Amino acid sequence: MIPRRKHNASSGSLPPPDDKHASNDYILSDSAARCGWRAALRRRFNRKTLHKRLPVTAWLPQYNAEKALGDLIAGITVGLTVIPQSLAYSNIAGLPPQYGLYGSFLGCFVYIVLGGCRAVPAGPTAIASLLTFQVAGGVVEKAILLNFLAGLVELLMGVLGLGFLINFVSGPVSSGFTSAVALMIATSQVKDLFAISVSGTTFLQQWISIFRNLHAASLWDPVLGFSCIALLLFMRKIGMIKLGAKSEDGPSTRQKVITKCLWMVSTCRNAIIVVATGVLGYWFVAVYGQPPVRLMGAIPSGVPMPQLPPFSYVRADNSTADFLDMVSELGSGLLVIPLIVLLEDIAICKAFSDGRTIDATQEMIALGVASVANSFMQAYPGGGSLARSVVSNGSGVKTTLNGLYTGVMVILALQFFTQYFEYIPKAALAAVIVSAILFMVEYNVIKPMWRAKKLDLIPGVGTFILCLTLPIELGILTGVIVNIIFILYHAARPKLSVEMLKTEHGVEYLMITPDRCLMFPSVDYVRRLVTKHAASSSVPVVIECTHIYSADYTAAKSIEQLTADFHATRQPLYFYNVKPSVCSIFEAVAKPEHFVVFYEDDELDRLLAADERLEPTKLPPARA
Amino acid sequence: MIPRRKHNASSGSLPPPDDKHASNDYILSDSAARCGWRAALRRRFNRKTLHKRLPVTAWLPQYNAEKALGDLIAGITVGLTVIPQSLAYSNIAGLPPQYGLYGSFLGCFVYIVLGGCRAVPAGPTAIASLLTFQVAGGVVEKAILLNFLAGLVELLMGVLGLGFLINFVSGPVSSGFTSAVALMIATSQVKDLFAISVSGTTFLQQWISIFRNLHAASLWDPVLGFSCIALLLFMRKIGMIKLGAKSEDGPSTRQKVITKCLWMVSTCRNAIIVVATGVLGYWFVAVYGQPPVRLMGAIPSGVPMPQLPPFSYVRADNSTADFLDMVSELGSGLLVIPLIVLLEDIAICKAFSDGRTIDATQEMIALGVASVANSFMQAYPGGGSLARSVVSNGSGVKTTLNGLYTGVMVILALQFFTQYFEYIPKAALAAVIVSAILFMVEYNVIKPMWRAKKLDLIPGVGTFILCLTLPIELGILTGVIVNIIFILYHAARPKLSVEMLKTEHGVEYLMITPDRCLMFPSVDYVRRLVTKHAASSSVPVVIECTHIYSADYTAAKSIEQLTADFHATRQPLYFYNVKPSVCSIFEAVAKPEHFVVFYEDDELDRLLAADERLEPTKLPPARA
Repeated sequence: MIPRRKHNASSGSLPPPDDKHASNDYILSDSAARCGWRAALRRRFNRKTLHKRLPVTAWLPQYNAEKALGDLIAGITVGLTVIPQSLAYSNIAGLPPQYGLYGSFLGCFVYIVLGGCRAVPAGPTAIASLLTFQVAGGVVEKAILLNFLAGLVELLMGVLGLGFLINFVSGPVSSGFTSAVALMIATSQVKDLFAISVSGTTFLQQWISIFRNLHAASLWDPVLGFSCIALLLFMRKIGMIKLGAKSEDGPSTRQKVITKCLWMVSTCRNAIIVVATGVLGYWFVAVYGQPPVRLMGAIPSGVPMPQLPPFSYVRADNSTADFLDMVSELGSGLLVIPLIVLLEDIAICKAFSDGRTIDATQEMIALGVASVANSFMQAYPGGGSLARSVVSNGSGVKTTLNGLYTGVMVILALQFFTQYFEYIPKAALAAVIVSAILFMVEYNVIKPMWRAKKLDLIPGVGTFILCLTLPIELGILTGVIVNIIFILYHAARPKLSVEMLKTEHGVEYLMITPDRCLMFPSVDYVRRLVTKHAASSSVPVVIECTHIYSADYTAAKSIEQLTADFHATRQPLYFYNVKPSVCSIFEAVAKPEHFVVFYEDDELDRLLAADERLEPTKLPPARA
Repeated sequence: MIPRRKHNASSGSLPPPDDKHASNDYILSDSAARCGWRAALRRRFNRKTLHKRLPVTAWLPQYNAEKALGDLIAGITVGLTVIPQSLAYSNIAGLPPQYGLYGSFLGCFVYIVLGGCRAVPAGPTAIASLLTFQVAGGVVEKAILLNFLAGLVELLMGVLGLGFLINFVSGPVSSGFTSAVALMIATSQVKDLFAISVSGTTFLQQWISIFRNLHAASLWDPVLGFSCIALLLFMRKIGMIKLGAKSEDGPSTRQKVITKCLWMVSTCRNAIIVVATGVLGYWFVAVYGQPPVRLMGAIPSGVPMPQLPPFSYVRADNSTADFLDMVSELGSGLLVIPLIVLLEDIAICKAFSDGRTIDATQEMIALGVASVANSFMQAYPGGGSLARSVVSNGSGVKTTLNGLYTGVMVILALQFFTQYFEYIPKAALAAVIVSAILFMVEYNVIKPMWRAKKLDLIPGVGTFILCLTLPIELGILTGVIVNIIFILYHAARPKLSVEMLKTEHGVEYLMITPDRCLMFPSVDYVRRLVTKHAASSSVPVVIECTHIYSADYTAAKSIEQLTADFHATRQPLYFYNVKPSVCSIFEAVAKPEHFVVFYEDDELDRLLAADERLEPTKLPPARA
């Protein structure tokens, strides 16, 4: 047990050696957030707010050639990543490949103006694609409407300041969720790797189906797929080589050039594989007519015309689902997808923040507008993706303007290159996904979690298992609720320390110190323990309220009953060091003659002397 | 702002004037609850546990003639209250009147053996009756199965120690709920008071229907009903008269006798009214053949044979609902009814505890077994009722054995008197309910709530309105959830106090003190504020962790990122007075060279001196 020594600044009972040491003028740092709507209105209209809400106005005036070059290189490199990714991710979402590309340009342009984090190119992501598949079930119209509505929800959350909601997704829940998603995405690619058909929706069903159908696997699809995975992992590895980094003089120019080339190959590995296998596929078709592996097939070319998202669609059974039908079919996905997209995006922003604070509200607004804009281009939900951000950051990105080049590349690809995409083997795209996704399984958090707080493994592992067995959005919701129950249990069960002490006059008393605030879930528990301890020894009781930083009406009622009980049994009860805000709550309910507060040690003896007259037998005789 | 003075016992930095003053041997009072299953097993088998789990073994050996007399009087008085109440409450539940009596004897017998609170006679209650009506919709089979399953849920909650759940129903939510229930019950009696038919399920619909149908009201039903209400309120009032209490010699014997008689009349007012109007009804039937007011009608006589609760029933449309159908129709009622019954029961136990602690677990077991037993007698859900407890306590109850006499009276009534009950006018029973229920509207809590904590009016008034507009179990669930959001917001937004201080060597530093524990919802917020304040002044930062009594993995990750950020910007960051339990959590994740903890004031200067060598320009020159 640490001796509870107090800092100079707070041990006010010492004569302060220096005025500044005893300073008590606390600045409550969230006071600014509570100044009411007038101040809020005033804050909305000034230059700082403009920079905050339109970040482009902050960086554009300082834009220069050096930054432009960095953005150009980063934009093109990201473009080479985003095009194969988009084709592959739309497969995860159960949609035709062009829909991935549709979501990769307009959102980038919006993010240039509104986005706060330079290293976040908005576009399809693996997690959002899987969630879209689970929520929209591969129906194009539902996926697009989902994007539109999810964008509105993000925007609304930004405007209403509901960003704090994502704080309720804890580290363990987030890790469990991400790991489960990675495994599910990898599973979803097995069908393309082996060219088999897989049925079932849950993880288990899919693997059962995979093992049943594996006998029907083709030979060349898995050969190509696993070769690609091996190549991709190899190329990933060579990007980490730093030639001459260990030599005493540092790397030579030649070593530096080779290192840079290896990094470039590694960064563009997805594009390289896709182009190489695409050429292979084209060659097979041109020479043999019939390739030994399955290819992507025809992709409609051209940039889509902007149009309203669909508010109705025709079901497989020819019945028409109207807007309300669609919304009720999307269900909890309308909340889960925005939350997960924001969670992922803000985690990325934090990772590349270089110590700056992240404006979560602005991110929500930027992603919300980008999503709504994308939905007019028939795109499905997306957001920031860690893989692209790593590439962008590594390519020396300077501002969000890099998104311009990425977007233009995607438009060019849609306009001129879709005819070539049809020769890309499906197994190669599956390899691109699998080789990226396996690093998302966060098995390495288990050890620190075990060392830090074993209890946190319950929400972590629980979420992982639930996400694999339940529909994934239910899995994470359940994980979050389990974790919230931890918080509630914590609020309901404070720790009380009980000490038998003596005043300076030698009168024994019981000091009971609750370690946290008194709110409705905990007050009965505290009252019961205080009554129990007080009954076991009939000395006066002092409740030390230093750690009670807040209370509510239920607590006040309970304190009133407690003081009345003590009054009835004629056992003295005092409250020590009650904060004024808490004191006023208690005083509003308790009878003033029952509720006695003191702030100075020596007051206690005086109070006891007064009470001794009232009930002398209850107190031990004062020792000289 | 109170000067933050510390108690002798905890200001360890002072030389302790007396060993006992500096005692630090805390007794963590819930440590016993965490000793694992072995200790739990050992605790299950000893005499104290026997007394706890079979309270009859504790009081029966000390039973004597004086206690027997007290219990006899109380038991008979309660019997005179419970018989008219049971007839009336089964009307609230939408069931024939005998079902109220069916629930008023076996449960009493069970409670004698298992119950912990002498003043709680188990039987039908107004709130449980209304909830039963809302959940079972007046179907006898569903009401009985509900009682059986609710009993099992109560028992399960007792065995699993889930009693803490009722702590999440705060005072304001409970008041709002009770008040709404009182108004709804009063509304449900209007149809009998005016002898009209009323349709609709919500409060508003029912009142619209009442005003539409009021023109069809009979003359004599309301005359009788309101006369009874007036009489009942008058008799209630005379019970409070204490003759001669203000005279100097105290009351004379004659005054005492009259006071006692008035009290007796007041206590038995429901029985008096029911018997008197019953005689009136009988007289009308005997003399005129056709009474001017509506009577109860025939009630089957006899104690029901014990039988299994019904596990299926035939619907109005002749289809059969099996067990699963019934369970799904009962829905959330299966959770809400046990919780509300327990909530009411434990509130009553507390009110009559005389300062003793209440064993919530034992109450759950007792009520659970009583409910299951009652369901074999075809009773619908019930529990402890405040009105009966007041009577019981006022009649000088000594032990739970009083339930024996109450139960026997109910059995006698069922066996021999049901033929007379049919002459009781419906309006008289409605008057019994209305005149009791109006005092359950807790308008008097609004003022103290307003003075204590205005924010608590939101869950209070919110629950009141929601219970009147939604199905009542949804209303209270929503109220509880809103109140839990308060707790979560509270957990997510700690207050940070920020002070600019100087060490003894005159080095300026920023001390940041979070006021509560670091858990996942709050860590990002704390990290953002610390980063912001640290960035605004580049002096060393000290995080004062005295109030951080617990932390989790997410907090540890955030602290790791914080220390890494500070390390990257070369701004010194120290942690002061971290509790060992919290320290070990942080150390499991953070790099040891980044995470620096100190416990003594003078350590800071030494740490800063060491850091000054590292980064001298960041620190202001030490003043001599």
